[in-house]
Amino acid sequence: MTRILGQNEAWAILEAGKLGRLGCIDNTEPYVVPINYLVDDGQIYVHSLPGRKIQAMRENHRACLQADQIRDDLHWSSAIAFGDFEEIIDESTRKQVMRLLRERFPQLTPVESLATLDAELQPVIVFRLRVDRVTGVAEE
Amino acid sequence: MTRILGQNEAWAILEAGKLGRLGCIDNTEPYVVPINYLVDDGQIYVHSLPGRKIQAMRENHRACLQADQIRDDLHWSSAIAFGDFEEIIDESTRKQVMRLLRERFPQLTPVESLATLDAELQPVIVFRLRVDRVTGVAEE
Repeated sequence: MTRILGQNEAWAILEAGKLGRLGCIDNTEPYVVPINYLVDDGQIYVHSLPGRKIQAMRENHRACLQADQIRDDLHWSSAIAFGDFEEIIDESTRKQVMRLLRERFPQLTPVESLATLDAELQPVIVFRLRVDRVTGVAEE
Repeated sequence: MTRILGQNEAWAILEAGKLGRLGCIDNTEPYVVPINYLVDDGQIYVHSLPGRKIQAMRENHRACLQADQIRDDLHWSSAIAFGDFEEIIDESTRKQVMRLLRERFPQLTPVESLATLDAELQPVIVFRLRVDRVTGVAEE
């Protein structure tokens, strides 16, 4: 049976996940990429090298992050957070977010770890999804 | 190192996968859902119950299907197929596609399996993504 999840259940899926799929609109086309993310205080944080998704979200801020827990075709849950892309430029906020990301993703490549020491050194983009809505569904 | 994949490599990822994330545009918002799919002759086929994604794609045909093979943060590949949503209405095509789907997904729920016997019985939607472009990237 398919069941609509409550807000808390949907957030729990998002918070438990580390790998999600970011959806954005590139010109007139939907675009989806796998990304590592973390949830902190109701916002979603991501670091990324520059590229198509960043360009797309700079043009059109609306984005979503989908995460799921899939056991098999008949037992899975999926949550999606909708919000606005916001690049984190402020140096101290940026360092703080990179620290959180490094804690959650100790495997960050040396280049990315280096960027946590000197955020100016590398062109790593840090952004948040300012979440204004979450939904979820489960098949169980 | 991140590497752009060739067409054949990107198709190989899509063909090997069974679970992907479908991206579409719902009104002005990106929307992403996990779905089972199959690739046949350069097209992507999906069955689905009616719902938000179907409504969205009936309004705006542009969609994408993202699939990936992820070992860890430093070893993964992802491919994305872009195309137009096309609902399969024709009864014989629909039955043929449902047969392919049932072969690939023997776990289809009884309701869905039943629909393969009598496609009129249930409101299962069958659609293809008419793929016109694939791209892919690998971290290795």
